[in-house]
Amino acid sequence: MIATPPSASLQLTDDGKLKHFLSVEHCSRSLLEDILNTAAGFVEVGDRSIKKVPLLRGKTVVNLFFEASTRTRTTFELAAKRLSADVLNIDIAKSATSKGESLMDMLWNLEAMSSDMFVVRHSDSGAPSFIAEHVTPNVAVINAGDGRHAHPTQAMLDMYTIRHYKQRFEGLKVAIVGDVLHSRVARSQIHALNILGAEEVRVIGPRTLIPVDIDALGVSVYSDLSQGLKDVDVVIALRLQKERMDSALLPSESEFFRLYGLNNDRLRPAKPDAIIMHPGPINRGVEIASEVADGERAVILHQVTFGIAVRMAVMSMCIAGQDAGGMA
Amino acid sequence: MIATPPSASLQLTDDGKLKHFLSVEHCSRSLLEDILNTAAGFVEVGDRSIKKVPLLRGKTVVNLFFEASTRTRTTFELAAKRLSADVLNIDIAKSATSKGESLMDMLWNLEAMSSDMFVVRHSDSGAPSFIAEHVTPNVAVINAGDGRHAHPTQAMLDMYTIRHYKQRFEGLKVAIVGDVLHSRVARSQIHALNILGAEEVRVIGPRTLIPVDIDALGVSVYSDLSQGLKDVDVVIALRLQKERMDSALLPSESEFFRLYGLNNDRLRPAKPDAIIMHPGPINRGVEIASEVADGERAVILHQVTFGIAVRMAVMSMCIAGQDAGGMA
Amino acid sequence: MIATPPSASLQLTDDGKLKHFLSVEHCSRSLLEDILNTAAGFVEVGDRSIKKVPLLRGKTVVNLFFEASTRTRTTFELAAKRLSADVLNIDIAKSATSKGESLMDMLWNLEAMSSDMFVVRHSDSGAPSFIAEHVTPNVAVINAGDGRHAHPTQAMLDMYTIRHYKQRFEGLKVAIVGDVLHSRVARSQIHALNILGAEEVRVIGPRTLIPVDIDALGVSVYSDLSQGLKDVDVVIALRLQKERMDSALLPSESEFFRLYGLNNDRLRPAKPDAIIMHPGPINRGVEIASEVADGERAVILHQVTFGIAVRMAVMSMCIAGQDAGGMA
Repeated sequence: MIATPPSASLQLTDDGKLKHFLSVEHCSRSLLEDILNTAAGFVEVGDRSIKKVPLLRGKTVVNLFFEASTRTRTTFELAAKRLSADVLNIDIAKSATSKGESLMDMLWNLEAMSSDMFVVRHSDSGAPSFIAEHVTPNVAVINAGDGRHAHPTQAMLDMYTIRHYKQRFEGLKVAIVGDVLHSRVARSQIHALNILGAEEVRVIGPRTLIPVDIDALGVSVYSDLSQGLKDVDVVIALRLQKERMDSALLPSESEFFRLYGLNNDRLRPAKPDAIIMHPGPINRGVEIASEVADGERAVILHQVTFGIAVRMAVMSMCIAGQDAGGMA
Repeated sequence: MIATPPSASLQLTDDGKLKHFLSVEHCSRSLLEDILNTAAGFVEVGDRSIKKVPLLRGKTVVNLFFEASTRTRTTFELAAKRLSADVLNIDIAKSATSKGESLMDMLWNLEAMSSDMFVVRHSDSGAPSFIAEHVTPNVAVINAGDGRHAHPTQAMLDMYTIRHYKQRFEGLKVAIVGDVLHSRVARSQIHALNILGAEEVRVIGPRTLIPVDIDALGVSVYSDLSQGLKDVDVVIALRLQKERMDSALLPSESEFFRLYGLNNDRLRPAKPDAIIMHPGPINRGVEIASEVADGERAVILHQVTFGIAVRMAVMSMCIAGQDAGGMA
Repeated sequence: MIATPPSASLQLTDDGKLKHFLSVEHCSRSLLEDILNTAAGFVEVGDRSIKKVPLLRGKTVVNLFFEASTRTRTTFELAAKRLSADVLNIDIAKSATSKGESLMDMLWNLEAMSSDMFVVRHSDSGAPSFIAEHVTPNVAVINAGDGRHAHPTQAMLDMYTIRHYKQRFEGLKVAIVGDVLHSRVARSQIHALNILGAEEVRVIGPRTLIPVDIDALGVSVYSDLSQGLKDVDVVIALRLQKERMDSALLPSESEFFRLYGLNNDRLRPAKPDAIIMHPGPINRGVEIASEVADGERAVILHQVTFGIAVRMAVMSMCIAGQDAGGMA
């Protein structure tokens, strides 16, 4: 057996079940497919009159957002509540860390309160893995976005969306457009697409926004939008972080839109039935034109709907993995 | 059949059931009575040992407060929880709109998460109606106060209180005292009282705080408190917005209290069994003296109690209307 | 019968059951033992897969924190949720009091919403008792820390911890180390230890941080750490409030640690099986060294675990006392 890197063994039980969800990197194809299949069962819950299943009843889920994100926190809070969990939102800026308490002391305290799961967002890459290494057994850690490293539940909801519309990954050409350099979402998407067997993953953007070593991840790089979009089945626009626009990396929003912004005309090289995705929130007229965002091929809001189901899947699988581990 | 104005048809299903609650204006008398009768059933829930009914179990209610109001948000949150709903509080100031997302994009995202109801407070008149026009079917919108326009659940809890103490609206004289100009509460109260058949609605206040065209709403205007209160059955004090006291409209709080503040002596022209109401929070010694606020005729805290029941009624009726519409 | 002081009768029903929990002072030994025995039943709930009991189902618990404390609020919120209550967190700074509403008007409003319990944290000593005196019957008030006066649930979780590890209070020597002057925790601990029959309670600290009249509470005072720790069974370190370090009372953190900080060497005079406690959050290297905080004798995180159970016990006992009182 080949030795697996730390984060792979860290997030799996001895018999290969998910117990934390930190990264899609190093996950097996069958595990990712398990997540997608489990999520499929939860999509239906959102359509029910009573959107509630008792899987996490009596469990305590703690949202630990070191970096503010109302949108992402809301999706995890909803997913947890639909699983019947009790949810605590800890606003880190206002809490004990301001009294000089260390991160680990805070976590140990939350564990001592019999928490079952930490959903962690942090501006430092690796913070959720660090936490997962140090929590007591029985506490699951889910990465809700860490630095430039990973955003695995976002990537999995994107995979769910692609599979929903394209039924398969084999033979698919997928283009990721925009600020790949700063995007934890892109990194997780690339890993997931390659693991799930997509034919080709392309990244498209100005050279200043593409990491130099990106081809090591198994992608082809394009700086020309038209060439990059040729015959693709899926187009994923990344969000342009406006706070980075002042830097030397890019001249202006309008300049970006002129070269890489998606409008109907510029999407012509893609396949006629290509779907258009975006992790949201969208900047209309910057990375995507309204005619595309509101058009027939956009599946952006379906990504949001599937996102609740995917988070319910990951949360319930991690709790099941922890419970199984505890019995072993 | 006479054409109904937009907001009337907007908040009703084809067969006349409530599906949003945006305004009491244009509502039929029988619909308002339905709300009061439904609320009567919920008043009893607040007295139970287990204050919980399963009507909204598995539903997601989102409090969208664009204007901060802990008190009003709390009453809706409690009403939703007693109906067994899951509640999300979105602090707009801190959320996605600050990332440049448009209002509609934010709403579409919340809809995509399978939200069932938006409770909307906004400083712009018409914002809840705008949202109701644009949400997908199956999402109910409740106006929790918009600009100077309306505060329909507050008006309905006031109607509930009046009916509770006076058993009827016929033959009742009701006086509304204070800053009518800036009051969405007064506007909704006037509409509701006229629809429900009150004999006479009076507004009393300095000319600078009475809208010039107010008599078009079917009220008599008094600038003299003593004349205005003569023989009334109900006195409603409005809250004086302190932040408006610096403007040219009024000289000072003490000047207002001298002319329009309610004390026992000044209430003498009203009927001996007149009830005294106030939407809260009260400014003691400004619009109302403590001897009145804490006196036997004040029903201010009962308004609060009935308010939970009225909000439970409106929420459950809107969800029922949406569900019925979805089946049609 | 001997007349009991106000706070004693205030928090008990006529037949001696808890209806508020404001202070351990004046509580009988049997009542404190009742709390510990009730808590013992709840400790097991935290170990269950479904950490939920229905005792407070349909009850409304309002966290009224006039002084921010994420940690303490979180423990009460969790305890209430595990009892199946609905929880409202009122952020006082942002709420109605900023609109000029008086404290009592705000409380009356919350009562009118059929709240069942107020959990009150306040910087003024006596605020929770004042509130308990003025609430309507059926509303329980729990003191979650008031000024320098009391922190009774913290003291009771400390008693639970001591009894858990030492099985009894008889014959125990307990040392409380640090800033006793500013500590509501110390005051409540001293009362509880004496009521429960500890053999000796010692306070250890610099004279500037020991109240001059402390011996009236039934403690022996030591300024020398080594003498104070001699043969003790339990060592309780108090948290040093860093915000008070700038005052004239103490020279510096390092000076405090040099004289009173607990490390393994300095703990040698204590019994070999002495347990080390701290209310948290700990300041490593100020009042306690990491070798002690993370060592075998430290039971600091167990205090946290027991704290949830003790709060569940107090909450359910107060609600039961209120319900019984309501039926009388």
